[in-house]
Amino acid sequence: MQDGGSNFSMKRRDLLRMIGLTAGSAAMYQAMSSLGFAAESKFKQTTGLQGAPKGASVLILGAGIAGMVAAYELRQAGYKVQVLEYNHRPGGRNWSLRGGDSFTEMGGLTQHCRFDDGLYVNPGPWRLPYHHHGILSYCKKLGVPLESYVQVNYNAYLHSANAFGGKPQRYRTINADYRGHVAELLAKATQGGKLDAPVSKEDQELLLESLREWGALDKNFAYERGTTSSNRRGFDKDPGGGLSARPVPSTPLGLKDVLGSRLWSNLSAGEIYEFQTALFQPVGGMGRIGEAFGRELKELIRYNARVTAIQQDDHGVSVAYEDTNTPGQTLNARADWCLCTIPLSVLAQLPMNVSQPMTDAINAVPYAASVKVGLQFKRRFWEEDEHIFGGITYTDLPISNISYPSTGFHSSGKGVLLGAYIWGLNAYEFTAMTPEQRVRKAVEYGNQIHPQYKEEFEHGVAVGWHRSPFTMGCFGVWSEEARAQHYDNLCKVDGRIALAGEHASYLPAWQEGAVTSALDAIGRIHQRAMSGATA
Amino acid sequence: MQDGGSNFSMKRRDLLRMIGLTAGSAAMYQAMSSLGFAAESKFKQTTGLQGAPKGASVLILGAGIAGMVAAYELRQAGYKVQVLEYNHRPGGRNWSLRGGDSFTEMGGLTQHCRFDDGLYVNPGPWRLPYHHHGILSYCKKLGVPLESYVQVNYNAYLHSANAFGGKPQRYRTINADYRGHVAELLAKATQGGKLDAPVSKEDQELLLESLREWGALDKNFAYERGTTSSNRRGFDKDPGGGLSARPVPSTPLGLKDVLGSRLWSNLSAGEIYEFQTALFQPVGGMGRIGEAFGRELKELIRYNARVTAIQQDDHGVSVAYEDTNTPGQTLNARADWCLCTIPLSVLAQLPMNVSQPMTDAINAVPYAASVKVGLQFKRRFWEEDEHIFGGITYTDLPISNISYPSTGFHSSGKGVLLGAYIWGLNAYEFTAMTPEQRVRKAVEYGNQIHPQYKEEFEHGVAVGWHRSPFTMGCFGVWSEEARAQHYDNLCKVDGRIALAGEHASYLPAWQEGAVTSALDAIGRIHQRAMSGATA
Repeated sequence: MQDGGSNFSMKRRDLLRMIGLTAGSAAMYQAMSSLGFAAESKFKQTTGLQGAPKGASVLILGAGIAGMVAAYELRQAGYKVQVLEYNHRPGGRNWSLRGGDSFTEMGGLTQHCRFDDGLYVNPGPWRLPYHHHGILSYCKKLGVPLESYVQVNYNAYLHSANAFGGKPQRYRTINADYRGHVAELLAKATQGGKLDAPVSKEDQELLLESLREWGALDKNFAYERGTTSSNRRGFDKDPGGGLSARPVPSTPLGLKDVLGSRLWSNLSAGEIYEFQTALFQPVGGMGRIGEAFGRELKELIRYNARVTAIQQDDHGVSVAYEDTNTPGQTLNARADWCLCTIPLSVLAQLPMNVSQPMTDAINAVPYAASVKVGLQFKRRFWEEDEHIFGGITYTDLPISNISYPSTGFHSSGKGVLLGAYIWGLNAYEFTAMTPEQRVRKAVEYGNQIHPQYKEEFEHGVAVGWHRSPFTMGCFGVWSEEARAQHYDNLCKVDGRIALAGEHASYLPAWQEGAVTSALDAIGRIHQRAMSGATA
Repeated sequence: MQDGGSNFSMKRRDLLRMIGLTAGSAAMYQAMSSLGFAAESKFKQTTGLQGAPKGASVLILGAGIAGMVAAYELRQAGYKVQVLEYNHRPGGRNWSLRGGDSFTEMGGLTQHCRFDDGLYVNPGPWRLPYHHHGILSYCKKLGVPLESYVQVNYNAYLHSANAFGGKPQRYRTINADYRGHVAELLAKATQGGKLDAPVSKEDQELLLESLREWGALDKNFAYERGTTSSNRRGFDKDPGGGLSARPVPSTPLGLKDVLGSRLWSNLSAGEIYEFQTALFQPVGGMGRIGEAFGRELKELIRYNARVTAIQQDDHGVSVAYEDTNTPGQTLNARADWCLCTIPLSVLAQLPMNVSQPMTDAINAVPYAASVKVGLQFKRRFWEEDEHIFGGITYTDLPISNISYPSTGFHSSGKGVLLGAYIWGLNAYEFTAMTPEQRVRKAVEYGNQIHPQYKEEFEHGVAVGWHRSPFTMGCFGVWSEEARAQHYDNLCKVDGRIALAGEHASYLPAWQEGAVTSALDAIGRIHQRAMSGATA
């Protein structure tokens, strides 16, 4: 996909890296979820580290979530802490783009976000599962207010360009109809004596009773047109008050049509552990967490600091960096220990004297490609016209997701959608475009689902993570094989250097992975520091 | 249940009424939902009535949602409007109890709510489905801010005193395991050729593929211990970051145990049309809607006005009432038309000269019994200890529901739960108790699910709707037969009187029923008034 036809200037080195990473990133986020790697955090409320050896210091590379959690805890334990951060802001991938923000991607193109006041898009993480206790506890400690995030919306759409003539279907109809047909098929098989081997007669009675209720079957165990099924999938004419308010039931889609549409593949989103209710988002954008950490750790963080080399010896770690405002001039920082949270995609290119196993591990983890597009519209037509309040429309178009804001419901005025959340090959294709082209494409595709796009669209921003200079990719993708061979070597303290970040966790892509990996790593650094201090 | 053992003073008349209503209210709310009667509103954004005949007047009885919607629209259309309200506040069943509020129930017992600032319980309606366009549109018009209401919480409990040794199960485990077993059974039946008759070979392939994904089956179509199932039901040891963070899968419950527990009967709550995402609640309590209407219509409403008789003649309607602060003194109000929103339970006892069919209809609708208990605790232990943020725990104990607040997540300090939402026979039993006893009982039962109750409970309030003097019941229960025979007669304009309220709708118990019935009724009054004006 990355060919000479792409009309932007791109360094050959970047191009090669992007192509090289394609192969490894075939294991996509969705696949990982079903492998169970993105799940509940093992975080338990810690009492925090205590009693740093007198004068001990830690240099932290990266003021993302991992780096700032580490800085927060190490400072509290009594360590001298310094943080070097490439960006001019804290948070890393914890980031909200708002009106007035600018962002320059690799290749040199700069986007100026022009969203109205109060509107934002989160190019990185955007939701907080209830069981991600680590990141949630820092929200509490830092006073970051949270609000509900709506993942599954029964009135949002499931869309396939090839099913139902390309007409989007409401989630509730596909959900009710799939469930109803499954329940009916199993009920009929049970009644026909087809389950006599695996299920006892007594349990068959219970099974039938449960299927009727669960699948909205009628008294004959059929999933049919009627008030029972319509009370799941919706009515043709909805009930109301007064005269002529009698409801008219709707007619379920046939099993064959439901199966053939493949829209059922979107029915498990809300069942996956991270996407189960309750979910949260910080009021005002995910970036509020990073911003709060940044304020809390103000005096510890040096921004615009691009690390160029990491060197350890028996007594400490020296890091060379340059100020991105005055490039070419090498600065140095030194501490007893170093916690490096630089994404592996970037770290792999830096000189660093660690063991061969850690070096191999750093090189073994490709980074997923992903593109997110935020679109501002003149009005919240998805609410006003279509009664969609939060949640996600799923489509097999390259944009993959349209996500509606989970806040400001029923408000007048403008709104910002997540207009695309793109993975895999499509993400590379979109990354190869200019930001303007990405936005235009997202609007074109989205218009197939929301014809209001054409009239209502104002402007947008588009972040292709492989063009993000501070991560060069979205998150570390671990194959089962790579994890078996390299994961422990990546996480072990190497001399005086330890790594942390979502890439050093079983929760890839999630901030909780960053939090728990940072706590795990500094715990082990602290142990070493303590044993050295008492030695 | 109402026997001499109940230790409160109760008028014989009230007692008889309560017993008399028991029979009819067997058709419970849940049953109604599955009959499809509580469903999407037919409300379409109206342009509103226009052009009242010069000088035309309407007297509205009741400043609940129906009465105030009518007053709002009729005033806008140019009618002279007056509203008589029994309570000292607007809203009727739209009502939040907050610290400082008092409430005297039939029998004379007064409760003083002592909740801390910002905490409340909604004794009446408490959630707004996204498709209840009428009530939502008035929230928008009146500037009532809405926030997400969490109905289904995968980390809340399903509890049966007789299943799993009385140990509450997380919603996510029962949900995942029921779904997984259903999918496995159907997959095995498909593979065993048991579905060859109803499903084509081609569709069988798709069915199998869908069941694997939808039910979290493994590659052999089995629902088994592993990361795939644990990523739905949760892990024994949750994944995290760094070393020793490897997840340990959990073991699914057996089909027999899941079926025998009957906990599956709670798995459809979020599938029912009114409980599907997105759901809302007004910030600060449901009562905010009634309060906003009250401010808007301030000069139209006379509070503390107890209607004692309704009399129409050829030219208008006269209503006798007394001020509850100076009882015994009859006051009168008169207008060209009357919209009566008084609950049928109360209206049935008032002299009113309407046709026999309308009188029969008024007498045909019993009122459901329900009790709600709000409990204040010293801390939000359900969040802090159990990570339950909003949503509902379902139990087969008489308390039926424990509902956790959908707002103030992660905040320190006190919290108020809905500690009981009681229906049917249990509701009569609780209604017969003193408020204090109801609260104590709710705490005793709840303690079986949350052992923290004993330590953390402070105080509570309990509203038994059959002891509410302004409704004498919770909502009108329509049997299919009663509806066929009486519904239209209830809704038709009778001379110069029309009725409105949730009881005059296909959306019983829902505020949307009140809104749409009011709009429907005033539309027909307006037509009559116009035709009279031009006659």
